[in-house]
This record gives sequence, C-alpha cells and structure tokens, in this order.
Amino acid sequence: LDEEKRSFTRTMDDEEIVYGLGENVRGINKRGWHYESMCCDDMNQTEDRTALYCAHNFFVVDGKEQFGVFIDYPGVLGFDFGYTKRELMQVTASDWNMDVYIVTGESLKDIVKQFRNLIGRSYIPPLWGFGFGQSRYSYMSEDEVREVVEKYRESGIPFDAIYLDIDYMDHYKDFTLNSETFPDFPAFVQEMKEKNVHLVPIIDAGVKQEEGYDIYDDGMKHGAFCVKEDGTPFVGAVWPGEAVFPDVLNKEARAWFGSNYKILLDQGIDGFWNDMNEPSIFYTPERMKQSFETIESLKGQDLSRDNYFKLMFSVVTLSNNPEYYKTFYHNIDGELVRHDRVHNLYGYNMTRAAGEAFERLVPDKRVLMFSRSSYIGMHRYGGMWQGDNKAWWSHLLMNLKEMPSLNMCGFLYTGADLGGFGSDTTEDLMLRWLALGVFTPLMRSHAAQRSRYHETYLFDAHESFKSVISTRYRLLPYIYSEYMKAALRGEMMFRPLAFDYTDDKRVKTVEDQMLVGDSIMIAPVYEQNAAGRTVYLPEPMKLVRFGLDGITEEVLPAGDHYVEVALSDVILFIRPNRLIPLSSGGQCVEDVDFQNVELLSFGPAEYEYYHDNGYEKDYDNPDHITVLRSAE
Amino acid sequence: LDEEKRSFTRTMDDEEIVYGLGENVRGINKRGWHYESMCCDDMNQTEDRTALYCAHNFFVVDGKEQFGVFIDYPGVLGFDFGYTKRELMQVTASDWNMDVYIVTGESLKDIVKQFRNLIGRSYIPPLWGFGFGQSRYSYMSEDEVREVVEKYRESGIPFDAIYLDIDYMDHYKDFTLNSETFPDFPAFVQEMKEKNVHLVPIIDAGVKQEEGYDIYDDGMKHGAFCVKEDGTPFVGAVWPGEAVFPDVLNKEARAWFGSNYKILLDQGIDGFWNDMNEPSIFYTPERMKQSFETIESLKGQDLSRDNYFKLMFSVVTLSNNPEYYKTFYHNIDGELVRHDRVHNLYGYNMTRAAGEAFERLVPDKRVLMFSRSSYIGMHRYGGMWQGDNKAWWSHLLMNLKEMPSLNMCGFLYTGADLGGFGSDTTEDLMLRWLALGVFTPLMRSHAAQRSRYHETYLFDAHESFKSVISTRYRLLPYIYSEYMKAALRGEMMFRPLAFDYTDDKRVKTVEDQMLVGDSIMIAPVYEQNAAGRTVYLPEPMKLVRFGLDGITEEVLPAGDHYVEVALSDVILFIRPNRLIPLSSGGQCVEDVDFQNVELLSFGPAEYEYYHDNGYEKDYDNPDHITVLRSAE
Repeated sequence: LDEEKRSFTRTMDDEEIVYGLGENVRGINKRGWHYESMCCDDMNQTEDRTALYCAHNFFVVDGKEQFGVFIDYPGVLGFDFGYTKRELMQVTASDWNMDVYIVTGESLKDIVKQFRNLIGRSYIPPLWGFGFGQSRYSYMSEDEVREVVEKYRESGIPFDAIYLDIDYMDHYKDFTLNSETFPDFPAFVQEMKEKNVHLVPIIDAGVKQEEGYDIYDDGMKHGAFCVKEDGTPFVGAVWPGEAVFPDVLNKEARAWFGSNYKILLDQGIDGFWNDMNEPSIFYTPERMKQSFETIESLKGQDLSRDNYFKLMFSVVTLSNNPEYYKTFYHNIDGELVRHDRVHNLYGYNMTRAAGEAFERLVPDKRVLMFSRSSYIGMHRYGGMWQGDNKAWWSHLLMNLKEMPSLNMCGFLYTGADLGGFGSDTTEDLMLRWLALGVFTPLMRSHAAQRSRYHETYLFDAHESFKSVISTRYRLLPYIYSEYMKAALRGEMMFRPLAFDYTDDKRVKTVEDQMLVGDSIMIAPVYEQNAAGRTVYLPEPMKLVRFGLDGITEEVLPAGDHYVEVALSDVILFIRPNRLIPLSSGGQCVEDVDFQNVELLSFGPAEYEYYHDNGYEKDYDNPDHITVLRSAE
Repeated sequence: LDEEKRSFTRTMDDEEIVYGLGENVRGINKRGWHYESMCCDDMNQTEDRTALYCAHNFFVVDGKEQFGVFIDYPGVLGFDFGYTKRELMQVTASDWNMDVYIVTGESLKDIVKQFRNLIGRSYIPPLWGFGFGQSRYSYMSEDEVREVVEKYRESGIPFDAIYLDIDYMDHYKDFTLNSETFPDFPAFVQEMKEKNVHLVPIIDAGVKQEEGYDIYDDGMKHGAFCVKEDGTPFVGAVWPGEAVFPDVLNKEARAWFGSNYKILLDQGIDGFWNDMNEPSIFYTPERMKQSFETIESLKGQDLSRDNYFKLMFSVVTLSNNPEYYKTFYHNIDGELVRHDRVHNLYGYNMTRAAGEAFERLVPDKRVLMFSRSSYIGMHRYGGMWQGDNKAWWSHLLMNLKEMPSLNMCGFLYTGADLGGFGSDTTEDLMLRWLALGVFTPLMRSHAAQRSRYHETYLFDAHESFKSVISTRYRLLPYIYSEYMKAALRGEMMFRPLAFDYTDDKRVKTVEDQMLVGDSIMIAPVYEQNAAGRTVYLPEPMKLVRFGLDGITEEVLPAGDHYVEVALSDVILFIRPNRLIPLSSGGQCVEDVDFQNVELLSFGPAEYEYYHDNGYEKDYDNPDHITVLRSAE
C-alpha cells in the first residue's frame, strides 16, 4: 500500500490467475495486461484497449491463496495485472476515497457466491426476454418492422422481440415518437403483441435541449439536469444535437427521469434498452469553439507534421473527450460533486432510475431492461449487452470470454450483438455466433447503420438458421431454470472449467470452453472455415448435436478430441450423471411448453428444475422447483 | 464472364478452398470474405479490412478442380470469395484491360511452382539478413544506437542489425542525414560493422519539395516526379511536409531515383527498407484548402448530427484519400497514365528502382532490401515486411497465416514486426512472437513512437529471451538452406499442411500449424496465458524443444496432442526420415559455423544442405549443395 502513489501492490506467484473485471478485453485470465475502470463509448474493442463501456471492479485471485477483491470506487481505477512486470499486481486510484472488500471463501465458486450475496440479487427479466430478438440501427417505420416480423414468421425462424433503435423517436428526443413513421404507436404495439412480438425501444442518456419539448421543460423545472460550475445546465451534443444530462446520481432527479418511462409503458411497451450512458458526448459547445479557433489559427500556416497533427487532433478529440467529465457536476445530497469523481456510476444510475420507476409503476410486472454502461450494483436493476461490437470472429470469442467475468460481477442477463454490430457480417459468422448465442440469456442480433443487413431470413442457408435458433427454444427450459437458480442462489451460470474441475491443472488455461449451468459444457466454433474444433474433456461426457437431422448423442472419453461441427449444428456436452430438460420448441416463448419436457441425460441423473410462469415475481416460491429424474 | 459488369464469376463446391492473395486479412483459406487489391497505409489490420499495404493478385483454387489464377492488372481489383453468397466466386475489375493467367499443375505445390517459374526467381538477401534485427521508430542519434548495441552485446542476446527509422534524416529528406545526431555517418557505419552490426536506413517514397535540397532539385531537372494534369509536379504531404513523388513507373525516372541509393552505399550501408510507398499521402494542398472551406462554412451553424459528421469527415478523410490517386499521372513511354489505373505498381517500382540500381552499382554484392508496399514482380528485387501492425496476439497469428500466402506469390523474404509496431507489447507476447520469428526469414523487432520500448534486453525474463533468439542462430543452417532451395526451385518455404498431406482431410482446416521447409512442422503458441497448445500430427513426428535446459526430443504418434510450451521454449516437429542441421549458435551471423553442423533427425534421413558464403551471387553453383546423412 502506497498512499502517496494512491496504489497498492502485491507479488503474484508464477502460476497465479486473475479472474474478473466483468466487461473488458483479453482473456478469462486477466493476467499480463493493464485495465482501467473508465466507462467509454468506442466500438473498436481491440486487444490494446484498457476499458470498454463498463466499470466492474471485482476480481478473484487464484494463486497460493484464493480471494476476491471488490473496490467500491466510482472514479478512474487502474489495474496492472502483470503488465509492467510479470509478477507485479498493482491497483491505482485517482484519489483515495474508497471501500475495499476482500472476499474469502472455500473455493473460487464460494468466493463468488459470498460476493454475490454481498451485492444483492441479480435482475430477473420476463420470460420472453429469453427468446431471440432482432435489432437494427434502425428500423425506420412501422412498415419496416411489420415486414421484418412477417418475414420471420413466414420463414419459421422463431423470435420474440424487435428492438427499436434511435430513429423511432422524434428527432432523437427521449420518450417521444416520430409521428410520421409510427403514427399510432399504442395500436402498433398491440398489433405486434398479438403476433407475440415485443417491441423494445431504446432510451438515450442525453435529453435534447429544446424549449417546448416537454421532457426538457419538465426536467428544467425539476432542476433535474447536471450543471456546470456556475449552476447552469451542462450541455453536450449527442444524437439529438445539444443535450442536457439527467442527474441520475441525485435521488429526486433519478425519480423524475424514471417516471418518464411511464409514457412508453402506458403505450403497451414492456421492455427497454438504455444507451449512450457512459455518458457518451460527441462534443461540448465550448470545446467545439476551441477547435474552430485552433483550425482558424492554422489557416495559411505550414501544415507539415506538427501542425497537421494539431489539426487532426483538434477534431478527432472532440468525441468523448474525458476532459468533458471535469466540467460538470452532480448534486449529491446538496453537495456538488464533479462528474469525473463519480463517472462510472452514471449508466448504473440511469438504469436504476428505470428499475426504481418500474417498481413504483408496475410493481407486479417484470420489465425487460438492459444497459450499455454499468457498474456493479446495476445488476440488480437490469442486464447489459456487451456493448457495440464488430462483425469480427475475435468478438465472438470475446463474447464467450466475458460471460463468466460478468457473471462474477452479478451480470447474468447478458449477451453480445450477435453477428456483430459494426462492419459487415458473413453467413458463417452469423451461424457460428448464433450457435453461441443459443446459450446466452440475452440472445439478440443487432447491426449498425450502413452495415450489411443480417436478419437471419436473408441468408441462403435457411434451414441452418432455422435449426440453430429453434435449438434455443428447445433448450429454453434448461436455460431459464439455470438462470433462475444462478440469480436466486448468487451463482455463476457461465463458469470457466477451472471453477468446477479444481484438481485438473490442464483446465486452468482452457478459455474457449465453458460450463453453462450445472449440467453442460459448451465449446463453440469461433474460426472461419473451420469444420470443427478440438475439445478437452476433463471427464467423460456425452456430446449432443442438434443438427439438420435432429438430435444425435455420442459418449466421449475424457481427453482431447477433434469434433466436427457443421455450420448448421449446435453442440453441447452433458456431464456424467447430469441431465437437461428439453422442450419441443416453438415459434416464440409463448409457444414453448415448459411443463412437458423431454430429458436428455448422461447416465442416471437428477435435476432441480426451476419453472414459474415467467412474469410474476414470487421467485422464491418453493413450488417453482421440481426434481426431474432420469434412469438412463 | 460479364464484360458489362467487368467481372467474372464461378460457382464453388461446398468444400472448396481458396488459397493466396499474399498479404491480406483472414485465414489461409480466403473463403467467406471479400478482398481488394488496393495498396493502402493503415496499421489497423482488423478482420473487416479488405486490403492492406500490398496487392498480390494470385490465388489457388482447391475444389473438384485445382488451378491457380494470376490477374496481372495494376488497378483496383475486387475478389468476392463466397462473401455475398457462399458458393459464388466473383472477381471484379475497375476496367477491363488485364492479363489473366490460369495456372495448372499436378498438385497444389506444382501449381505454385509453375506460377513461380513464370514470375521469376525470388530476391535473395545477404546472409546477415537472416540474423535478428532490432528496430524502433526511431533511434534518434548515434549515441542511442550505440547504447542499444552495447546493451545487446552485454546481454548475450544475439543480433545483427539496427534499423534506422525516419529520424536519422535531416527533416525527413531522403538520402540525407541529420548532421547533429549523426555527425560522421561513414565512421559510425564502420564502427558498427566492426561490432558485426549492420545499420539499415529507411527510404520513403515522398521527396521533400524544397528548393536547394539537392535530390529535389536534381529530380526536377530530370523531370522525374509525377505530375498533375497540367504537367506541374503533383504535391502531397507526408513526413517532410509537402513532397513530390518519383515517377518510378517511368524507366528514366526509376533509374534516377535508384541512383540516389549510392549516396548511402558509399557511406558503407548495405541494407535498406522502403516505406510509405503505397504511396501514403497525408493530404494534398488542394484537399486541405477544401477542408478549411468546409469548416469555415460550418462556423456558427447548428452542428447537430449531419453537420457534425460533415466536420469530422472533412478532416478524417484528409489522410490517404483514394481520390488523390485520380489527380496525378505517370509518364509511361510518353503517355500520361493516371495513377489510380496503375496504383498498385508504385511500391513495386520504387523497390525495383533500388534493385536495378544495386545491379548497376554493386553488381557482385547482395544488398538487403525490403518494402512495405508491393505487387507480384517486386519479389525479384526485394523482400517485404508484413506492414505496420499492432502488439496484438491476433497479429501474431496473422503473421503465421500470411507466410504461405506470400510464399505462393514469390515473397520469401518476409516477416512481421515482432512484438507489434503500434500499441504496447507485453513480455509474454514478445516471447511467443519471437518464437515464431525464429522461423521467418526476416526476423525483426520493431515498435512505434510512444509505444512501449521492447528491445529484448529490457525485460525481466532475460534467459528466456536469450534462449529463444539464440535458437534462431542454432537453426540458421537449416533456415538459410531451405530459403535458398525455395528461392532457386520456385518452391514455398512455408506451406499449409494440406499442401503436403494431400490425403488427410483433417489438415485442410488446420491454419495454426505450418510446414517450414522440407523437414519440419511448427505450431506456435498465440494465446496469452496459454501454457501450451493442441497440435494435430498427420503422421508420427519428433517433438524437439529448445528450452532453458537445452534440447529435448520426444517422439509422438500421429493424432491430437496437447503440448506444454513454456514461455522460454521454441518447439518444432521433425517429420519421419527427415533431419535438420544445427549450428552451435553465435552472437551474430558472422559467428555461426555453417560447416560443422550437428544433425537432429527422426529416423534415418538424408538432407540436401545448401550452403554458400552468403554474400556472392553464384547461387546455382552445384558445390553449394551437400547431402547430409543421419543413420539414427
């Protein structure tokens, strides 16, 4: 501990592993790189990044000792896990006002469980939130949405939700609708509901600064926006142009912001995604003025090298400049706190605003909610998607590797933009990524403006897409049951093999296979043109293949195997004396029969099956658990 | 064939593989993505790119039929290998003036050999070019170079060359020296030679436009620069600021540009690297003026959304805008040809200028030469490095995957910036990447301005670095011998397993193991925190491990194996009835005894050992080949 440098350090064993940090780059083992807690909006999730959209300050050390560390600190934190020196662990804070929790336990799983008990129960979505959802930035009108819905239903590819990105709004104004393209929204929501399709609109953090826009006017009246040092509202530009930012760290302002979700709830909406809440800021008027001045001063000058880079710099640093965070304030219990000191709490509290509002407004109902930015604690109010990613094979693998890290931090309802948000996807990347998405609680395909359309019915390999996504619906009883048990018991649904096979040294470095729930291991294919992959089995397992010709099963001995996996296949491995309940599938979650399930087992097995109606909140009712038995 | 659309298409079999395209993204099998021949300067070599620094228009189809296709066309070409539709192959040209060669043969290896015979013998570097080299952008002075050299020699880590990036020049002016930081260059070159260190300066494509600068004045006198439509020199800004571009496509201008290398040859230099020759252009004065006007017009306007992106766009599209290539001309046999029509020939001809000059100036000597941009044909005049990359684990794997693709196209002398050019490297990435670099003909560590220093003596794991790089020097007899045979016989030194194991279906998708020369297979580790990796052996092989405790050998049966590989290890696999000659190592190539070699073999074996003095050019002298025999 060095109070001067605001850091603490320790020496790591040679074989020590560091798990955790939730959403971040690199491996499941975070060792060998440095990371930052500093929520930021940048979809280039390349290996050299140190921070992504979230700040998740929990990690677990597995060396001669095993323990967890949670640093409850809302400003910028640095984690050096053997980057500067291989054996050196160093955590550095920008100031020294933090709570540090050291979490002990009997095992890695137990340490996580202790921590999860400390931070509270994870968010539980409505059952339909486990269906497949289709998103795009943006479906521009009712008619466009109708067409997508129709084509999905015609194709026989199951799905449950359509996501509305920013263009559904009137000039990107929160809680409004474009009245030309969505002329009668309540009727349209109802029309979709009748087809078992849920519409999920996006809500952005920034509120357009425009007199006469009721949300803005009302927020001003409530003094609900973040302010500059002089007490006037802080203005930053985002999608709607110049905007103000709800002071969601302030209790009253948070209640005010949350209450606005009622506008859409009242129109029949039962799910939302919160975006741009790092918060993302394209520019501030002050900084834009400076850029213009810099450019003006360069006019007529020799632009070789230094001046050229000065010009470039003055423009490319407009977007999401961390300096902005030093120029506005939150009113926390009457005290003005500069944003940079609490930066990482913004997305958390925006989503908390929604979650608290839902508790007031629709206390008996589960509302779908997930966020781009988050901090530990937000897991109680909503899930998260793994940020704006790219149509890269490496991001498929990253999706997998983030799952256990997020589960440790309480984020169970999560998944990545399947197929990739930015860049153009390919048919095979879509299929392989969906075959992973089949197992992630949030299963959503999303794509950016100008990128290739990737609604799954658009591809030639129609039967393959249908088979892969239908497999999700067959697996729903298992996925929902495991999700609920993990949420209610504070456990990880996605676990590295090393968490269960504690005596197997080999599994400590296996980062491309994962335990999902109690019964199965998955091993997704994540390389283009691969016809299969190698899989390491720490014990004998039963390979189950969901293919075009139905389900096939094969028992494999422990050890290394090369397993062929066709583009149309979803594979999983059942552990000894375990089983999974399977439904007969359906076109949407509503269709799925969770009562009459088929059992797939490897040897005689018992299974605690959690099943409730999926919409009410009596989670702890013991009737929801039945024990299923297989004698095979 | 569709002349209207300027494209030809064919239907691919389901299991068809497409090899080739030299330097590009994605796998060894190029199927499933689209590519472009369009040399460009951008170090973000992410998966969604379609073109990198080079244009290599040769590919080999392995389906029901096997054949190669070479499209000799210097403008932009598009290759869709199953991206738009999985079974569709489509090649599209921007106009229709091209030579298409269909290359047939008895096998994949034979097709490549036929093609290589067609395009001429690959460049052969001096023997010291097979040593390890250290580079950085930039070592700023003689003293800084001296310090690096001293520390290397003190550390006992062998090396042979120091690369001088742009700061050795006077204001980035080609063929000049900064007289303050390098006050007596000939003496310094000599001083380094006495320590067996070769200095390798960079040469950039753009020549500073500055009256009084002799190269510029002389080039103007010779009319040696590219011109605009009005006949005046075309000006684009690069490192030295506004610059002109030698018209290397013109024979006389090429001869003139090449003759300037004499300035440095005369000071004792015997190696160069040619850079910025896509050509890279930061901006043109015309386009800069437009950007200023655009920005001016936006002043005081509402900058929300469209205007904001207009501002951004006007600045970020300054750098390497393809529109620039439509604004200048080459004088080819008296005809003015617009650059975009012959764009991909620029780097080729810059390096050809040097190569042709070396033939005139130092006909008996081999000069080290490699280039960033290239086109097939340039392989006769120089090697190439795999462009500015990043300190990403994914780029280690990309380095490996590009090796056979480049070999097919004639580029044998190649390798990547070990440890990564941009971004900060890590100790383990350095070690793993060096363990691959041990096998690549060009073995150079390079790093960008502001990135972490990664001279290998800086890291704690000193013995590991020493062991890995020393292994290169022990392997030099094999590496040089295999290089020379591949060059002289038109063969691939690096081959996918599928090229040799033609009856093994499994190897068709193995992209992370490689045959290097006739005797060995390599299987590098390319994942952080991995303790080893799985390896597929299509036949029994002998695993040889060069570790801290010397060499160990182990025979493994055919099949899948998990092989532990410590960070200090270099591993390779000897094929049955093959051997490799090993030297006892050395601190530099000059130290290495190529005559008295130790043989490592797997079973009784014979080996054609190529050895010459490494500096002369009587390549085809039969005395250079001896047959080595092992009875083991």
